[in-house]
Amino acid sequence: MKVKAAVAYEAGKPLVIETVDLEGPKAGEVLVELKATGICHTDYYTLSGADPEGIFPAILGHEGAGIVVDVGPGVTSLKKGDHVIPLYTPECRQCEYCLSQKTNLCQAIRSTQGQGLMPDGSSRFSIGGKKIHHYMGTSTFAQYTVVPEIALAKIREDAPFDKVCYIGCGVTTGIGAVIYTAKVEPGARVVVFGLGGIGLNVIQGARMAGAAQIVGVDINPARKEMATKFGMTDFVNPSEVDGDLVAYLVSLTKGGADYSFECIGNTQVMRQALECCHKGWGTSVIIGVAAAGQEISTRPFQLVTGRNWRGSAFGGARGRTDVPKIVDWYMDGKIDIDSLITHTMPLERINEGFDLMKRGESIRGVVIY
Amino acid sequence: MKVKAAVAYEAGKPLVIETVDLEGPKAGEVLVELKATGICHTDYYTLSGADPEGIFPAILGHEGAGIVVDVGPGVTSLKKGDHVIPLYTPECRQCEYCLSQKTNLCQAIRSTQGQGLMPDGSSRFSIGGKKIHHYMGTSTFAQYTVVPEIALAKIREDAPFDKVCYIGCGVTTGIGAVIYTAKVEPGARVVVFGLGGIGLNVIQGARMAGAAQIVGVDINPARKEMATKFGMTDFVNPSEVDGDLVAYLVSLTKGGADYSFECIGNTQVMRQALECCHKGWGTSVIIGVAAAGQEISTRPFQLVTGRNWRGSAFGGARGRTDVPKIVDWYMDGKIDIDSLITHTMPLERINEGFDLMKRGESIRGVVIY
Repeated sequence: MKVKAAVAYEAGKPLVIETVDLEGPKAGEVLVELKATGICHTDYYTLSGADPEGIFPAILGHEGAGIVVDVGPGVTSLKKGDHVIPLYTPECRQCEYCLSQKTNLCQAIRSTQGQGLMPDGSSRFSIGGKKIHHYMGTSTFAQYTVVPEIALAKIREDAPFDKVCYIGCGVTTGIGAVIYTAKVEPGARVVVFGLGGIGLNVIQGARMAGAAQIVGVDINPARKEMATKFGMTDFVNPSEVDGDLVAYLVSLTKGGADYSFECIGNTQVMRQALECCHKGWGTSVIIGVAAAGQEISTRPFQLVTGRNWRGSAFGGARGRTDVPKIVDWYMDGKIDIDSLITHTMPLERINEGFDLMKRGESIRGVVIY
Repeated sequence: MKVKAAVAYEAGKPLVIETVDLEGPKAGEVLVELKATGICHTDYYTLSGADPEGIFPAILGHEGAGIVVDVGPGVTSLKKGDHVIPLYTPECRQCEYCLSQKTNLCQAIRSTQGQGLMPDGSSRFSIGGKKIHHYMGTSTFAQYTVVPEIALAKIREDAPFDKVCYIGCGVTTGIGAVIYTAKVEPGARVVVFGLGGIGLNVIQGARMAGAAQIVGVDINPARKEMATKFGMTDFVNPSEVDGDLVAYLVSLTKGGADYSFECIGNTQVMRQALECCHKGWGTSVIIGVAAAGQEISTRPFQLVTGRNWRGSAFGGARGRTDVPKIVDWYMDGKIDIDSLITHTMPLERINEGFDLMKRGESIRGVVIY
């Protein structure tokens, strides 16, 4: 079929709106009509050329929501008309990783996904007979896309696509890191570094978990208002702190954070996030993606005296199991997504969405098909 | 009272056997007659002058076992004749740390203990009217010592002092890191770096926990025999591995260690220990004490893809609660201590015990009073 899509032909160049060819779903695959997709920093990371694993030409996008149009042979869990969110972290429920019950990093289709291909090693997208690669197994910058069955979360039909698409990445990454990775408990003291889209979702996740103190740290004072609305109790601007930021945060949290979250991707901040944790039990979770080759460091004494250093990908959420629950939280008013979606646009203006993000003017821009 | 003791007068000098003065126990304190004490690397670390917090003159020693001789006012949990192991990590069961149920690092007497003093800020030891400092709250290199009630584990009376004294530090540090910190489960794959006294105890802890594979890593091939006896299933000598040690260990463990333990204090090895862990869930525990100022580092990607970096002090054991259980494990034959105590000596020859340890000839030397 002919499908309108934004094609990334080359690193560092804008996306090009094209009509591309899309093959129908093969065994275990599902054809999805996308209704909306968010534009995420990870798309820009790849488009910019900074991602060493970036492949071109490709159809980017990994934060979508839509409706099942057709299913390939052997698909049993989804049918035409189902509402779905594509998952860049699938959940096969069969592999060693899924069965470990210790991680959400399903490896069932990892190698082909990393190569921009479907699990059978081919692509469904092409233009003029030339292959276009998939991206993160989702390729949501297209009107229609083909996704493996194990990489689709079935969601309730009354959820608005233009809001819950954000659960496909940013919302889950932030809230999940609190709920599934750190398992923040009521009464905890939490410190969040970086108050962009991920940090704000960490904050509302901490509020939902019943945290007693939620400290937000950002050098941009304009972030204070929104973060306060999302549940932040204390704002710290590092550029206004005299002396050592870590000591300041330890004092502010009466001994250190029970949980801290790094939502920037800055390795120096990752160290501060660890070291502001409470002796004996403080856990620091790295969410941000650092530039290639950068390293984190600390004195081992920080760990020997009880701090715990870990990371979170897709919020530790098992996509098919947990994403529908997060949609429920949104529909029940437990979490706010609407305030975070600051801009919407048609696919034709997707490059403007990237520009807004790069300039820091949007929290989340969403393409509505 | 007059007490025979080994006094550390100065960094870098041998201990001096002296008759010192010991005041009786004050409120909340207990007078203990020591029957045996191990000689640990930490005593040497302080005696050598490398410990930036070392205080002299002091009576070192922190791995003892003995009998209660007298108790001060207000002591309720111990009486004359009780068998005890002094605890350098106390357990007050009242402080924020004890009540958190998340750490064993009781802080009740931390500040005075760090200053080489009893909780009231004074010392019980002196010679010729000049103060001698306590050490780690225990000072077991003396025939008699005074210890706070909260820093004594009451143990069964049929346990031999010259063996269970080792539970006061090394045994608990190794086995506890497996049982209490990492919580290794049956079937797990474990990698242990460094097969000295701590590493051997990690190995037997892993065996007790039901680990399916226990890989020992050491550059000294002479360690293989004892480690195998303690439960090691695979020995790896890094100097005999072609290429990258981490990749070799990941392959040997079919994807990486579920748990790894660094028992050396080498920050480069700490990195290897983390990076040989299984993607998605592998946990690396730092036990070894690195030289002052040294730092650990890795790429944050290691944590974001699910590895967990933590540390363990005194094996995560709550001394009064867990040490008596470990004594039971020894008495029930679940763990071997006898093989690890390679040398015994009277207090007069304690400097020979240090020499044996420095030369790597002993696993554990024990002074018998």
